[in-house]
Amino acid sequence: MTHDEFRAAGHQLIDWLADYRARVAELPVMARTAPGEVKAQLPAAPPLGPEPFADILADLEKIVVPGLSHWQHPSFFGYFPCNGLPASVLGDFASTGLGVLGLSWQSSPALTEVEEVVTDWMRQMTGLSAAWSGVIQDTASTCTLVALLCARERASGYSLSRGGLQAAEQPLTVYTSAHSHSSVEKAALLAGFGRDNLRVIEHDSQYGMKPAALEAAIRRDAAAGLKPCAVVGTTGTTTSTALDPIAELAAVAGAHGIWLHVDAAMAGSAMILPECRWMWQGIEGADSLVLNPHKWLGVAFDCSLYYVRDPEHLVRVMSTNPSYLRSGSDAQVKNLRDWGLPLGRRFRALKLWFAIREQGVAALQQRLRRDLANAQWFADQVRAAGGWSVLAPVPLQTVCVRHQPRGVDGEALDQHTLGWADRVNRSGQAYLTPAILDGRWMVRVSIGALATEREHVEALWMLMRQEAERSD
Amino acid sequence: MTHDEFRAAGHQLIDWLADYRARVAELPVMARTAPGEVKAQLPAAPPLGPEPFADILADLEKIVVPGLSHWQHPSFFGYFPCNGLPASVLGDFASTGLGVLGLSWQSSPALTEVEEVVTDWMRQMTGLSAAWSGVIQDTASTCTLVALLCARERASGYSLSRGGLQAAEQPLTVYTSAHSHSSVEKAALLAGFGRDNLRVIEHDSQYGMKPAALEAAIRRDAAAGLKPCAVVGTTGTTTSTALDPIAELAAVAGAHGIWLHVDAAMAGSAMILPECRWMWQGIEGADSLVLNPHKWLGVAFDCSLYYVRDPEHLVRVMSTNPSYLRSGSDAQVKNLRDWGLPLGRRFRALKLWFAIREQGVAALQQRLRRDLANAQWFADQVRAAGGWSVLAPVPLQTVCVRHQPRGVDGEALDQHTLGWADRVNRSGQAYLTPAILDGRWMVRVSIGALATEREHVEALWMLMRQEAERSD
Repeated sequence: MTHDEFRAAGHQLIDWLADYRARVAELPVMARTAPGEVKAQLPAAPPLGPEPFADILADLEKIVVPGLSHWQHPSFFGYFPCNGLPASVLGDFASTGLGVLGLSWQSSPALTEVEEVVTDWMRQMTGLSAAWSGVIQDTASTCTLVALLCARERASGYSLSRGGLQAAEQPLTVYTSAHSHSSVEKAALLAGFGRDNLRVIEHDSQYGMKPAALEAAIRRDAAAGLKPCAVVGTTGTTTSTALDPIAELAAVAGAHGIWLHVDAAMAGSAMILPECRWMWQGIEGADSLVLNPHKWLGVAFDCSLYYVRDPEHLVRVMSTNPSYLRSGSDAQVKNLRDWGLPLGRRFRALKLWFAIREQGVAALQQRLRRDLANAQWFADQVRAAGGWSVLAPVPLQTVCVRHQPRGVDGEALDQHTLGWADRVNRSGQAYLTPAILDGRWMVRVSIGALATEREHVEALWMLMRQEAERSD
Repeated sequence: MTHDEFRAAGHQLIDWLADYRARVAELPVMARTAPGEVKAQLPAAPPLGPEPFADILADLEKIVVPGLSHWQHPSFFGYFPCNGLPASVLGDFASTGLGVLGLSWQSSPALTEVEEVVTDWMRQMTGLSAAWSGVIQDTASTCTLVALLCARERASGYSLSRGGLQAAEQPLTVYTSAHSHSSVEKAALLAGFGRDNLRVIEHDSQYGMKPAALEAAIRRDAAAGLKPCAVVGTTGTTTSTALDPIAELAAVAGAHGIWLHVDAAMAGSAMILPECRWMWQGIEGADSLVLNPHKWLGVAFDCSLYYVRDPEHLVRVMSTNPSYLRSGSDAQVKNLRDWGLPLGRRFRALKLWFAIREQGVAALQQRLRRDLANAQWFADQVRAAGGWSVLAPVPLQTVCVRHQPRGVDGEALDQHTLGWADRVNRSGQAYLTPAILDGRWMVRVSIGALATEREHVEALWMLMRQEAERSD
């Protein structure tokens, strides 16, 4: 493909994508593809000779699009918003098109320095003090793993430089809540702590971790000869956007000298709204935090921000320094390879830079406020309707709901819930994610796709009533 | 930005990128930016209001481009080729533009199924048997970490479900060579093994690991009450593209029941050439391997392929199953979140799919053969020139060279080497990476950027002679 063929094919693709975004509202939100259906349409072996770009584009339309659940659809209420602002999409295109790689500062200085600047912009936008340093990672799962590795090394006096966790005299323990994200447990297990050393701390009726229970667990472990190492709190849990009391967790963690990591993957975007910052009050007492601009804020996936108070510690745990990566500038610059797991890094800062500049902070705030208002309106409708209930506080844009017909409970209620949610999803008119809360299935309505306006929430509510209240 | 504004801005950006690729040969290869120079041109605070897209594009040209080292430049001979084939770039654009996310199969079935198909295409293209299952990860660093975590769990009988590494009765040991990539040591330390349990095995004069030394180290450790766990071999090391003897390593690993992971990040691309497959002969005896299509093969970064013989083991180590990610199809499909560290995944398969289809296997092979021939030609010139030597075998596209003026050795030789390499890099006409081999600096010439033809290698050789042979 010559430069001019790239130009022509690129224009075709841009048009196709602009058309896709313009018509996505007309597509069924959830893919209707059966398992194996996409695979069956693809050749089992690679082509020996070249294929025309037009054929590839045609297959994108014919085979791929019907196999997608459309996250950019205005009636996408599943999982969480994973918005790709058009400007951010273009920023990512610039990154891929330039094709430069950050191995070290020298391997493309602008890649590192734009990242330093925009992560600092985000720090200011979310009201964090200047004591925080940020870096872009792929996902919150990775950030939480990095956090627990750093906690492990701080608590063990850099055991990695000696016998590792295998030489632990006092086993290290980690604390979190049953409502924390599955990646916390995964990170603790992969970091080698072991399930026996992971404590699931009790939560209150609003699904926030109980600081007194944390304190008690830490004391119990210390008395038993274990070494409390880290606690992971969450600002905006996955199931219900519940809020762990960060200030109280920080007080407990501080008193015992253990690491506090805050998972604000979802709610972190809302911290650009001053009126929401009470949700992570006390955040300055944490050691590390993650927030994902690739969720609600609208920066094309993947763009997860990891902030730390002590970057030197991070670098000490993560650094490598082979000869082929050394340069004369190393003493004066940041080498971001030492700020996370992978060596190579994309120029991900461009998509964040493009998005913030093209939108401006005020427009980003305005959109998030629209979504918060929609969530409150929706929760009000649910609360007012007979047989329906809102099951958890609604501090953000996720509403946990259940419809309970008279006399239906237990397993039958679960079947009813999963049944109507499935009918909504199969209708193609909206997409919802069922989840378990307090041992029973309910339905999460996650509001905040870029294109989602009040009318889409209204339509969803009508559809939900229709599917849940119909007599089966 | 409306759909039509996106269309217009997208066309502008495509044109800008096509022009960039067309004129990149005229830019200085290595950035001439001083530390902090890019940062100083950017506002310290984010904009409150929106900025026109034209301003952002203008800054890309004015601030970013001068701060880049141009990896797509025909005279980029640094690090390793990190090629972005135009078709692959467009595949990545499609991924970002669609903005769908793979959390589970159901969250976008085509994302998973296209990935299954193209990783299997690559398996066939590289001559691997059908016993291998592949998945796309971000980088080889991550793949190697995943491999060592899986090795750890197999050797410890899934200690993560109990006391983790902290309850190890017999410390687990890991084996690699001094020529393996820095990510191997990093992965071993992060996985918790500890530096005391990482053995650096002796290599031969061609920088390949000595199987007898590996065998001896394993026996020594076992006799001392330790538990040998994993060996990491390399096909194409970073410094000199040296080849560990995979068949022999596999025999030793097999005899002792330990995990063999093969890092073919660089050389894996060459395995699409049947005449190169002797380089990893015995690969079927490995447990896992990584190869990076985002290097020489030309798929836009990041696209690292991780292949395993036993995917059930991988899933057992990596799986999570929160309620909000369950679906009725789970028994019939692959949920790739359980095949690596992060939960969320981009539709990275598109860029690999686009690249293979637009190129065809034969054209990919032809380009790699061009580069192999250029490397041999270049090595011949170096060997024939007085004062110059080729320091390591040249099985692939990297040539390790040194120029030694009469009577110059030791530290003075290092200064001479770093001096002329720096002059080449600062000239802007080519980019090279110095590295240490056998305790002395030398210069790696890594051939294989998409645009690199014989004429560029010839020009490099003239420039090297000019800068190294001049009297200072």
